[in-house]
Amino acid sequence: MSFPCLEKLEKRSKKLVEEGPEPVYSKISDKNVDMYHSGEPIFLDYGGFLPEFDIAYESWGTLNADRSNAVLIHTGLSASSHAHSTKKNPTSGWWEDFIGPDRYLDTNKYFVICTNVIGGCFGSTGPMSVDPSTGEKYATSFPVISVNDMVRAQHRLISDHFSIKKLYCSIGASMGGMQSLAYANEFSDEVVKVVSISGCAKSHPYSIAMRFCQRHVLMTDPKWNKGYYYNGVPPHTGMKLAREIATITYRSGPEWEQRFGVERADPSRQPAFCPDFLIETYLDHAGEKWCLDFDPNSFLYISKAMDLFDLGKKTRSRAVKSRHQAERRFKGENISSGELVYKPSAFCEYEHPMEENHRTRRFTPEQSKEDLVEGLSRIADKEVLVVGVESDILFPAWQQMEIFNLLREAEARKGADGSNIHHVELSKEDSYYGHDTFLLALKYVGDPVKAFLG
Amino acid sequence: MSFPCLEKLEKRSKKLVEEGPEPVYSKISDKNVDMYHSGEPIFLDYGGFLPEFDIAYESWGTLNADRSNAVLIHTGLSASSHAHSTKKNPTSGWWEDFIGPDRYLDTNKYFVICTNVIGGCFGSTGPMSVDPSTGEKYATSFPVISVNDMVRAQHRLISDHFSIKKLYCSIGASMGGMQSLAYANEFSDEVVKVVSISGCAKSHPYSIAMRFCQRHVLMTDPKWNKGYYYNGVPPHTGMKLAREIATITYRSGPEWEQRFGVERADPSRQPAFCPDFLIETYLDHAGEKWCLDFDPNSFLYISKAMDLFDLGKKTRSRAVKSRHQAERRFKGENISSGELVYKPSAFCEYEHPMEENHRTRRFTPEQSKEDLVEGLSRIADKEVLVVGVESDILFPAWQQMEIFNLLREAEARKGADGSNIHHVELSKEDSYYGHDTFLLALKYVGDPVKAFLG
Repeated sequence: MSFPCLEKLEKRSKKLVEEGPEPVYSKISDKNVDMYHSGEPIFLDYGGFLPEFDIAYESWGTLNADRSNAVLIHTGLSASSHAHSTKKNPTSGWWEDFIGPDRYLDTNKYFVICTNVIGGCFGSTGPMSVDPSTGEKYATSFPVISVNDMVRAQHRLISDHFSIKKLYCSIGASMGGMQSLAYANEFSDEVVKVVSISGCAKSHPYSIAMRFCQRHVLMTDPKWNKGYYYNGVPPHTGMKLAREIATITYRSGPEWEQRFGVERADPSRQPAFCPDFLIETYLDHAGEKWCLDFDPNSFLYISKAMDLFDLGKKTRSRAVKSRHQAERRFKGENISSGELVYKPSAFCEYEHPMEENHRTRRFTPEQSKEDLVEGLSRIADKEVLVVGVESDILFPAWQQMEIFNLLREAEARKGADGSNIHHVELSKEDSYYGHDTFLLALKYVGDPVKAFLG
Repeated sequence: MSFPCLEKLEKRSKKLVEEGPEPVYSKISDKNVDMYHSGEPIFLDYGGFLPEFDIAYESWGTLNADRSNAVLIHTGLSASSHAHSTKKNPTSGWWEDFIGPDRYLDTNKYFVICTNVIGGCFGSTGPMSVDPSTGEKYATSFPVISVNDMVRAQHRLISDHFSIKKLYCSIGASMGGMQSLAYANEFSDEVVKVVSISGCAKSHPYSIAMRFCQRHVLMTDPKWNKGYYYNGVPPHTGMKLAREIATITYRSGPEWEQRFGVERADPSRQPAFCPDFLIETYLDHAGEKWCLDFDPNSFLYISKAMDLFDLGKKTRSRAVKSRHQAERRFKGENISSGELVYKPSAFCEYEHPMEENHRTRRFTPEQSKEDLVEGLSRIADKEVLVVGVESDILFPAWQQMEIFNLLREAEARKGADGSNIHHVELSKEDSYYGHDTFLLALKYVGDPVKAFLG
């Protein structure tokens, strides 16, 4: 049996060696985005800090005189700020037809901004940035970041650079939906409207499991080298495998059934372990396209941030304490181990072997729900639109319904009727595209968004 | 950041080198199973053949005088013939409480047999067996096998060794459910009753996608070495990763939500990329337990056989032709390339790059359905029980309903009422265990099976 798919990977490694050690995945430069530099440190939810940082961003439309028409778009894991073409970068953006004059996000009315998250590889500070304290790239010495950290970095741009006191709308899908809620959660008085599409209030075990496998296949690629690959060949095989797994969660069975069915790409040949069925060639292709397009360490940090996402009150209380410790650490203060919110060494199964049926959750599902109601009460008085997609298996429709119910419950406790909280669910007939619906079924997502924005 | 989970993998590699190159995953020997040897060749659905082969099996209860009380259990991908303890092997089997006197499979009434599939690593002929034509282990020179090949090998044992003319029942879950239907499909007059639990009539794209990723992570482990690792360290990392991904498909969200929730194993430590959340330690543990317990090549061949499973008429016609060619090949006849059912070289995306939105299915879903109705008409006059599980994401409940509907349709075309076809679906309240329900919710699966067997 021959394995041309493996030979292809070896060939790429060789080619990358010949081409030299420059990372090839950074597609954004200061030539095609705007840059904001914050010389002030940012203190992070899990106890780290960045002494200074950059935010790369793009914008469309015009900020009005009273700075009241800003719409901030938050990105998903792998998307850049290039949601729409610009003068600096005329290539199509990932939401090209969603944004523009008279579009769903109407640039005649709104000043639309999209930023690159910290931790990423599209110009904002991330693992491939240089750590000013060492002069070397951060790699895996980059601190663990949270989705809330991402939006607090964005806020610096919104408030310090643009002097915007209140966003008209915070909007995003997928991890962008998480950020959209997180922004309102962090800056409760600085947002009028919130749109969360295929997001969640807290991750769920299946999605963590799928992301864990993606990270694990990347980390076991010998080329990953514990994150220190910047002078060598990047772990393109691990990235390809990770993307193949991720792609399964982005699309859906019904679409694949229609598009590929269970047919082999070339039924006249003997079955093979290399891509063989149409669905396999599709996954392989998705992996191929991405494996050199994104910094592997950025992928790990952002993927992990999604797992950690939790708008519950407990997580927030802990984060506030932890940021305070980070600040003290930044100022050179010593923190006694008894005080520490997070012990610095990494937890790992290696140290604490799992005994099956032994380790189970400490809090009941009811306690977890209660914690989320309390946490979300910071958002519940805003105008909120939650959009869910029935065919989504990564951020399932029940998670959207959960956000809606939690917000309504939080409002009810304040004696309010909750009519400011809106929920729309796209059926399988509206879209069978699964999690990627926000990129593909623009009309079904856009119509309720446009109506909501007014 | 430290990565003890990676150090653990390196440590295992070193230990395996020190312990010597013997494969450690063969747990079955002729001491604890019965062996049947067929000196006659078996010709395979995709054009290969085995000149001779072994079947390792176990049995419980007593074959009656007219040999009419045999129940053949078919195994899932990773299970062995050890469904229940025996005198030779008193350890608990994987269906220990399902089989026995007065149990769901009542050994007072039935002679229960369970075999190890060809292609596997539990004593029946597979990739780690010696190819008599070379004196070397087959490795990836082992021919591609199908689920139907597996049951035709079993049939040799049933018919030639036990002289059983007709099975009372063919039963299995998961790939065992596939085999159970395949047995009735291959030997239409030699089965009275058929039970398929969480099986299917044909694989579906999501399940193929998930198995493809498992195989792909294994094949990219450098230690896999294109299948030739038998004298070295086996690809335990690839196997671990593959099992982590597989485990996601075996269990389900609702169970994990109850059991693990979204809680970290040690919330006092900083988040880590090594297993961190409870669900991650669970997956890691599942991978650890399995990574040296199964021959990696066996995993690839059996996993691929599941993808290829298709009871449609077209696939069968092609297989019959292809087996005939294998027979001619065995006899030393030359086959002209124009005659070939399958061209021997492996198809791979490498040779035919996929263009997005270009390659799509050739047959419509309606044509595919029609093909299955025609194929299943060979089974439709048997007493059939199909058991589905609502929480199963790998072999979803709709696939069980599909088998039921296809069989009923096939019967209707013969003018029969189809009352011989039965279907039971376990709700999420009955079992939230997902695909593994047949191992865990014995009563809910066993009661309808027992009633059906009579």
